[in-house]
Amino acid sequence: MNGAESLVHTLLANDVDTCFANPGTSEMHFVAALDRIDGMRCVLGLFEGVVSGAADGYARMADKPAATLLHCGPGMANAMANLHNAQKARTPMVNIVGDQATYHRPLNAPLTAATATWAAPFSVWMETTVDPAEVGARASEAVRAARSGAGGIATLILPSDASWGDGGVVAAKLNVPERRRIDDAAVQEAARLIKAGKAALLLDGIALREEGLALAERIRQHTGARLLAPTSVARIERGPGRAAVERIPYVVDVAHAALADVGSLIMVGAERPATFFAYPGKSGTPEPEEAIRHRLAAPDDDVLDALARLADALGAPQAVVADHGPSPEMPKGKPTSQGFAQMLTNVMPENAIIVDEAVSFGRAFAANTVAAPRHDWLQLTGGAIGIGLPLATGAALGAPGRRVITLQADGSALYTVQALWTQARAKLDVTTIIFSNRAYAILQGEFTNVGVDGPPGATAMGMMQLTNPSIDWIKLSQSFGVEAAQAHTLEECADLILAADRRGGPFLIELLID
Amino acid sequence: MNGAESLVHTLLANDVDTCFANPGTSEMHFVAALDRIDGMRCVLGLFEGVVSGAADGYARMADKPAATLLHCGPGMANAMANLHNAQKARTPMVNIVGDQATYHRPLNAPLTAATATWAAPFSVWMETTVDPAEVGARASEAVRAARSGAGGIATLILPSDASWGDGGVVAAKLNVPERRRIDDAAVQEAARLIKAGKAALLLDGIALREEGLALAERIRQHTGARLLAPTSVARIERGPGRAAVERIPYVVDVAHAALADVGSLIMVGAERPATFFAYPGKSGTPEPEEAIRHRLAAPDDDVLDALARLADALGAPQAVVADHGPSPEMPKGKPTSQGFAQMLTNVMPENAIIVDEAVSFGRAFAANTVAAPRHDWLQLTGGAIGIGLPLATGAALGAPGRRVITLQADGSALYTVQALWTQARAKLDVTTIIFSNRAYAILQGEFTNVGVDGPPGATAMGMMQLTNPSIDWIKLSQSFGVEAAQAHTLEECADLILAADRRGGPFLIELLID
Repeated sequence: MNGAESLVHTLLANDVDTCFANPGTSEMHFVAALDRIDGMRCVLGLFEGVVSGAADGYARMADKPAATLLHCGPGMANAMANLHNAQKARTPMVNIVGDQATYHRPLNAPLTAATATWAAPFSVWMETTVDPAEVGARASEAVRAARSGAGGIATLILPSDASWGDGGVVAAKLNVPERRRIDDAAVQEAARLIKAGKAALLLDGIALREEGLALAERIRQHTGARLLAPTSVARIERGPGRAAVERIPYVVDVAHAALADVGSLIMVGAERPATFFAYPGKSGTPEPEEAIRHRLAAPDDDVLDALARLADALGAPQAVVADHGPSPEMPKGKPTSQGFAQMLTNVMPENAIIVDEAVSFGRAFAANTVAAPRHDWLQLTGGAIGIGLPLATGAALGAPGRRVITLQADGSALYTVQALWTQARAKLDVTTIIFSNRAYAILQGEFTNVGVDGPPGATAMGMMQLTNPSIDWIKLSQSFGVEAAQAHTLEECADLILAADRRGGPFLIELLID
Repeated sequence: MNGAESLVHTLLANDVDTCFANPGTSEMHFVAALDRIDGMRCVLGLFEGVVSGAADGYARMADKPAATLLHCGPGMANAMANLHNAQKARTPMVNIVGDQATYHRPLNAPLTAATATWAAPFSVWMETTVDPAEVGARASEAVRAARSGAGGIATLILPSDASWGDGGVVAAKLNVPERRRIDDAAVQEAARLIKAGKAALLLDGIALREEGLALAERIRQHTGARLLAPTSVARIERGPGRAAVERIPYVVDVAHAALADVGSLIMVGAERPATFFAYPGKSGTPEPEEAIRHRLAAPDDDVLDALARLADALGAPQAVVADHGPSPEMPKGKPTSQGFAQMLTNVMPENAIIVDEAVSFGRAFAANTVAAPRHDWLQLTGGAIGIGLPLATGAALGAPGRRVITLQADGSALYTVQALWTQARAKLDVTTIIFSNRAYAILQGEFTNVGVDGPPGATAMGMMQLTNPSIDWIKLSQSFGVEAAQAHTLEECADLILAADRRGGPFLIELLID
């Protein structure tokens, strides 16, 4: 057995059975091993940013890591923007990155690159394995690292001679360590702050799933503490029976206003929040600078246990979440952010997965979809645009049988549009809605936010508008094998969403919003 | 004057007047400065890999650096594969990379990333500037570093408070240091080896331009030394009056056979060659292991002076390069690599720029285009696929008035296909020929080369074929605003190449080669 074969067997033994891949020469032995070993589903991406974004979406829904198979150096670099997003989402993922054979590396062949240097910042675990006999053991460690705590990215760099060399040994699955149980003092301090009033719980990670939300809702109903989520979250479970959570607004002034009355911020599996960017003369934290910040549980800690103990310490009884009211009236006509969200609330199928890279058009979505059926909402976590289409691709593979609806800004979609082809090839139930304003609209707002006087001139607008020529989204989608249609109104868009759901497979809707 | 304004003024003072950009919030002050300052041409790319590849192509043709404007962290990461290629090409380039404001960075906002760690490996010069008053001086140093020696990538990381802060100072242009003159001993040793026979000059960089080729041809005609070029070169000037040079074949066995009689390898502005990858049981150097290797001049040295002194030391008289014979007969019918090259030789306009990312289909191109009119040939230097369309875009902007013909493998084109939009927007004279075999054909060859027994099975083929569905290249091209047509035969392709030249602007031809 060669190193590559031991790797595939070990991944399978560790319950990693899906591999998103864009391989090159140095990964050919891994590819060959897949022919000989049953059980690993391989999904090809036409660009590595598709691969990493899809692995992220898969793991967010399947709650276990996928493997990626990436070509040495520059291939991995192409995956890095979405690896950055996955890192910020604390997504479990196991990267298998090929590299030059160990003895070839000193010759500085064209593809020789600083793979390990580039991978270290986004990896919770990284190793370069040169001995075929150790590949299996390292792979088990990689999976364990990826699954530990809230989750993270493990990167195994595999020189090609480690892949093709004989002596591979399959490693057994390693147990994932228990999450750290937090001290009573942290619970008591949180309880004290909440009793003092003006408290908000900032929930993230596992706390935004059904069980965590139920615990948080007990606390809210008993004490009046607000329930907040970060501006961008990896996944939140929403709909009837699940507590509604306010997400911190993106726009800095809106965020400051929304959180002005927060006296203490209790972080529950969440990092301390920060505005996306600094703006001249404005605070970089959404909560008041004088607010008390208290960490109940770090993301890797046993967050649910901490929440349960906090609810008990507060004497909060079981709570029933009322449903969130009837669907809003079906809006019509020209799309607005609010109108779109209300329309979506009406047509969203039960158990949908919403992938949200709507950027500027999405500002009203969270508030106007609370009455929707049960669904999961997935977001861009690291600010690196170009995740939506890949994330949706992976989410569909990680949660088969559920319709994925991608809410996608046009400019961002163009970074990784090749993901549509993978959706077509795998016949995934993904409806992509392109919000077509033919601009980097967010930058037009940021131009003012960062304190530039006056409106953008011709040169600046040339770098913020996607016109001259405009993208033909219908042809673009069809070119990758995904049928598509244009919608000018909310009712046209609603009809197309329903039709896409009935027909099955992927479909793209270009919704004109300018 | 703020930091961003001093930066734009300083770049212009240093003769950097073209900026390829995909900016974000942290770069808004640079964008705003461009509105207020005349003279900087800004070219938007829809993806950062387009930006860096275009800056590479521009500089290869203009012989001076362009600036790039890249968004912090992940934005730069998207540019890295083509920055890797540019590094291997020793392309002069000045990256301006935004970053979080210095005081915001500790808050670990979503886009906070390891920008400097990622940039260091491909940069000959890198600095993070936090003081607006120093931005101008650092920019002048960056341009000088980019232009020194053979050229390189300078990366200036600019936290947004350095951009928006007052006190910017415009810096004057800095002189580029002279290239190092090599010692006489290196010349004498080269002369001795050449006189001993079985010598080959391996030329790269400036030695592959007209003046260097003329010097090398003097030596060849006088001594019989072979003239070689690396497998992939940044730019080579070819056609009547210019010495023909053999390029080292990509396929490892073919390379070993072609160089079997080389007794000494004289490196002239070239690195020691290596095969692209290691293969089990095969040498990683194309020349015989026992060959003598002698460095006449390193890439950054005064290569032309060294060549001239070597020619003189050998007593080589002036040489006249015969033309390379008549064009081959116009081939017809089903495309082959050789037939395509012969057809191209017939229809290539005078002074064309050929951008070559043909990968496996291109193996016969070099040998079968020696009789073409004068042209420049640009290649993928670092093995990171996805450079062709961006490189062509930049080359067209760096050498206006010349037709660019991109010879492009289909799988590689899909990495950075967004470049077509920039070609449409700038109405560039670029003819893209997509070699459409609907496969990563090179991997099918590599699968065998790396020693896997037997042909690829269904799983492996699923990762090497781009079918199910096939890409519709006509729609894909049109979606980005570039007209396109399909060709099934060499004569159809020839007609379309000639028609594209007559009509002006960009055009795409899908040539079916399977």
